[in-house]
Order: sequence, then C-alpha cells, then structure tokens
Amino acid sequence: MTTTVHARVTAGPNEPFTPTRIERRDPGAHDVAISIHYTGVCHSDVSHARSEWGHNPFPLVPGHEIAGIVTAVGSAVTRFEVGARVGVGCLVDSCRECRNCLLGHEEQCIPGNTKTYGSTDRDGTPTYGGYSEAIVVNEDFVLALPDGIPLENAAPLLCAGVTVFAPLKRWGAGHGKRVGIVGLGGLGHLAVRLASAMGAEVTVFDLAANKESDARALGAQDFFTVSDPQVFRDLAQTLDLIISTVPANVDLDAYLGLLLLDGVYVSIGVPSRPLTLDAFSVIVNRRAVAGSRIGSIAETQELLDFCGVHGIGAEIELIDADQIDVAFDRLVKGDVRFRFVLDTATLAPVEPVPAMR
Amino acid sequence: MTTTVHARVTAGPNEPFTPTRIERRDPGAHDVAISIHYTGVCHSDVSHARSEWGHNPFPLVPGHEIAGIVTAVGSAVTRFEVGARVGVGCLVDSCRECRNCLLGHEEQCIPGNTKTYGSTDRDGTPTYGGYSEAIVVNEDFVLALPDGIPLENAAPLLCAGVTVFAPLKRWGAGHGKRVGIVGLGGLGHLAVRLASAMGAEVTVFDLAANKESDARALGAQDFFTVSDPQVFRDLAQTLDLIISTVPANVDLDAYLGLLLLDGVYVSIGVPSRPLTLDAFSVIVNRRAVAGSRIGSIAETQELLDFCGVHGIGAEIELIDADQIDVAFDRLVKGDVRFRFVLDTATLAPVEPVPAMR
Repeated sequence: MTTTVHARVTAGPNEPFTPTRIERRDPGAHDVAISIHYTGVCHSDVSHARSEWGHNPFPLVPGHEIAGIVTAVGSAVTRFEVGARVGVGCLVDSCRECRNCLLGHEEQCIPGNTKTYGSTDRDGTPTYGGYSEAIVVNEDFVLALPDGIPLENAAPLLCAGVTVFAPLKRWGAGHGKRVGIVGLGGLGHLAVRLASAMGAEVTVFDLAANKESDARALGAQDFFTVSDPQVFRDLAQTLDLIISTVPANVDLDAYLGLLLLDGVYVSIGVPSRPLTLDAFSVIVNRRAVAGSRIGSIAETQELLDFCGVHGIGAEIELIDADQIDVAFDRLVKGDVRFRFVLDTATLAPVEPVPAMR
Repeated sequence: MTTTVHARVTAGPNEPFTPTRIERRDPGAHDVAISIHYTGVCHSDVSHARSEWGHNPFPLVPGHEIAGIVTAVGSAVTRFEVGARVGVGCLVDSCRECRNCLLGHEEQCIPGNTKTYGSTDRDGTPTYGGYSEAIVVNEDFVLALPDGIPLENAAPLLCAGVTVFAPLKRWGAGHGKRVGIVGLGGLGHLAVRLASAMGAEVTVFDLAANKESDARALGAQDFFTVSDPQVFRDLAQTLDLIISTVPANVDLDAYLGLLLLDGVYVSIGVPSRPLTLDAFSVIVNRRAVAGSRIGSIAETQELLDFCGVHGIGAEIELIDADQIDVAFDRLVKGDVRFRFVLDTATLAPVEPVPAMR
C-alpha cells in the first residue's frame, strides 16, 4: 500500500519545477511517516537539479532539510510517537555494515549511503526528497527536533547546520578558541551562531563588505573583506580554526597563514578546481588542511539538542512552491538572507495533477 | 675566555669543506660544554651549504645531529654532570617568550629560534654546528641520551628521529593503527622503526623496489613501489596515517585516497613546487593534510627515552672528515644506507690550520 502526496519535480537539468504527485510507502515496522511542513533549499539541490555533479537522477524531487510532524509509526519504532516534531537530513539509509557505518559515520558510508533524494532505496524505488508533503523514513535516520525552535527555522539545521557543527565540534571550537568562518551564507551564518554559542571568538571573512552588520548581529566579534591582502598580513597567526563554507578557489596558503600552532583549516565547500598548497604553509605551526561532509546521524542529533539549549535556528526567507525556480536563480547569485525554506502547504496546485509514473 | 676546537667549514655554496679551528665560549652559568663524538649528516646540511634555501650563512660549519659527552657544566646547571652522554639537535636557543615557546614548542618559535648552525646567538656571534670537536649549549637545549644506544647511532635521532617521532605521536600511531611511511631514507628508516615499536602496522612506499628487504628488516609489514598506480587502487582506504618524508611533488590526492576515516597525511619533506589538492580528497573520510617540523625539546627527550626502552638507533655509515664533500654528493643521489655520521675524531688535520676569523 502507498499514499499519494503532492510534490514538485524537475524532469531534467534545464526544466522548470512542476507540480506532481508521488507515492510514499506505508510505514514498515521500523518506519516513521512524517507530514513535511517545511523544507530548506540547499545549494546542492541546485547542483543536483542542474546536473552540475555529473549524474542525472531525473525525475528529481529535491529537498534534504526536512522538518515536520510524525503521522504514523511502524510497530517496532521506539524513539518516536505520532505528533512528535522531527527532521530528516541528507540520508535516509546507509549500508550499516562498512567500517565507517560501524564507527557511526553513516555520512561517510563506503559503498555509498542512500540519499534523501536522487538515490535508490533498499526496495529498488527512487528516493524523493522534501519538496513534497510527506515522507516515510527508517527511524534510525529520523531526528528529534528541539522544542522552541519553529519548524521553518529548524529545517536548515538538518544539512547546513550539521555541516558546520560537525567540524566545529571535531576540531575543538569552544571557550578560548578563535574561529574564522569564510563566507556568510546559508552555512556560514549558522557557523557563526554555533561557534559563538560554543564560546569561541568568531571572525567572519566575506567578499561583501555590507555583510558586516549581519555578521556581528549573528555573534561575530570581527569581520573582514577578503579582497584586501593586508587583512591576511594583519591577522597572521591569530586563529585556531577556519571553516571555509565557500566553493571558491581560495588562496589556501593565505588562509593557512592565519592559523596558530596546531590550527586547522576545514574545507566544506568544494571548489571547481584543485587548490594549491605550499607544504611550508602546514609545516609552519604544524597546521592541517582538513575536509568534512555533513555529519553523522549522532552528530546531527547532538547539534539539534545544542540548538534547543541555545535557541539557535536559521535565518530564513519562506517561499511558496511556485517560487522554487526563482529561488534557485537567486541562490546561485547569493541573493538570499540566509536560507530559502519551502512552505510545503503551498505544494498542492489549484488544478489536480496526475501522479508521477 | 674561549676554547679553540677543530672543525670543517665551507666558505660558500660551491666551496669544498676545509679544516679550520673555531672558538667555543667558556660555559656560562646555564651552559653545558660538550665534547662532540659523532654528528649525523642531515640533508638540510647540504641544502644550507649549497644555499638552496636562499640565504648565505657563510662561513658555515653544519651539523645538528650531535652526540657527545659533557666535559664541563656552568654553576647553575642542574640536569647534567660531567661525563653524561648528551645530544644537541637543530636548536640551541629560542626567544622563550612567544606563544609557541610558552606552549613548549621552541621548534615553532615565532620570531625565529637560534639554529645550531647558521644563526646568530644571543651574544651576537654566529652559531657553528656539529662538524666540530666541541660545542657549548644552554642546558635547556641539551638532551640526555639513553644508555645502550651507541653515540654514533644516537646522533641521527636528534633531527631525523624527532622529525618523524613528533608527527607519529601527534597523530596517534600505536596499536591497531596502520601507518604508511613514504620514502625509506634517513627519516623513513627511523619512522619505520619507531612506528613499529609504537605497535603500529607499517607499510613502506618507495620508488626503489630493492628497498623491500630493508623495509621488512626494519619492521614494516608491507612494501610497495609507488610507480605502480595499481598500488593506490588496491590500498584505497587502508591506512590511518601517512608520514611523507620525501621532498618530492607527490600526487597528494592519490596518497589521500589511501586513508581511512579521520586519516591524516603529514608532510615533513618540503617539495620544490606547491602541491595540488582536490578538496574532495579530504572531504571524503574527513581526512587532513598536515605538516610537521622537527619537534620540541620535550618531544625530543621523549623520543630519546623511547629509543632507550626499545633499543632504537639509526642505521649509519660512518665517515671521516675528509669525506664530507663526497658524502654530500652521495646523499643528493640517495646513495646512503641510511644516514652518514661524521666521526669527529678525524677532524684534526695532519697539518696545523689557522683559527677562523
């Protein structure tokens, strides 16, 4: 048995989003059925929808920053009850058997995990994401949302939030630490809030000088525009950790020069070309260049609990389903403050649409 | 007052080593006077003597892998007595005031530490290294050598040894860890012995297939020639830590592909050109590319104590003072098994020489 729900779909890399209806399975013993209220619009939604990463998972229903309410649970589900506020992030399953899964890092599943959209599920069906009214997910990949954070502000925590939280945690952001955040966008603005709540002193680097007031309002102590090379001289050896949220081909050696002893530069954005690295930039001060990808399910829950305690959500612009294409174009231009979130109550079109086959 | 001792000096980047006599200060209150018995020949001696690093500290008396016996101590010296077996490494002083010095990392002294040779000492005199019969060093930069390790085998521990020990320790080499060592030379052969003694499983990568038996004899479980690209496919995601001892422009992304979750690649060799890095290579498995430089005085003592417990010294070829130029040429070609060590008993020439002015 299945349930049919409204969704928005794109048929190919140059196709607009159109209304459709998709099937959701009835919850199995370990499944949680979720009524989706809000879904964040992540930059990777654009990359997938426009085939920028070289695969063509069409028809595509994106969305992996899902916030909603449990409507039904399978007989074996123990962690969630009907009515609970829950979220779903980038993954709905993983192999559960590889070294990384056994270490609790499903986000680094070696044979490849099951993405919330654009993957093939265990039952052989394609996965469709959060640009839809409902989803059914194995309880191991469902997150409990904190009380006090509105669902629309919580949704972006499921991808953007954990993507910055995991490296901040892994590399010791906290009291007495000085953290640089490169890029004040969807990821960066959450990084500033989180690092600041962890007790770190936060410095923001961005191309746009007009973001300074936002940076400070979010909790940053300092703000610098990276177009000025003097900044890199003035701030030499002043930071413990830098999280780069931008997909740009940055001057890695220049950023490394900002790091103190044992400082770490973490790239979570993927530049289009390889970076260049002078070995001396890491030999001095025993620095490191690291990478990070989303975060594990456990790290995601830890983030959400932390956000509950500290009252942290995303700054959002709410959009209707008919605005997805426009939002994608604006996102590519960086014209968003700071995350678009889709109101799924607007998914049902005025005219009935056929179910996707 | 000073003492005049025999040494070998080079007058410029294209000049051979010649006999000379140099002055050593009488020990001050905190100084230790050391009769040098053996001095290791480090590749950086060649780089300095041939001005490859862009400065010209001539006349140059190299040598920073010094092993000898204490002959006198200043009135305030508490840690050493006449007759003690001691060593001196790359540093004879540091600013002692910067953040890194206060953190106990004199090797990363921010204004720049005082190198054992080629620097200017606190009293304004140039520092001359271990290609000499004696040296006087502040006790804070003198190391206690372990009993049971012959002085000639201990000498290379002072630079080569700590340069590999510090990153092995910092990044957790030990039981259950799989460590790759790139390059089986002066640094690499000690890295294999140390990592193996720490309990790690060691894999050696080298260009020369004929080093396999040496690698295994030193303690490696596995050996691979890096000219075969299939090696990198077969060994994907099998190592926790890679220490690269080579100054070559390696394929960093290929080596990163060998690392497991949270794996770290540490560069201690300095390639002549920048490396290239695909951000994805570190994002997958949350890897890091790090650097390391020698080690602190405390780390050096820890290494020496560890070597005493495990009976670890360097494999050496002993040379006379007249063979320094030949040894430099052979070192550049990698023709040494595994470290040249200068027997300082051969420094005094048959004909008397004038003192250096």
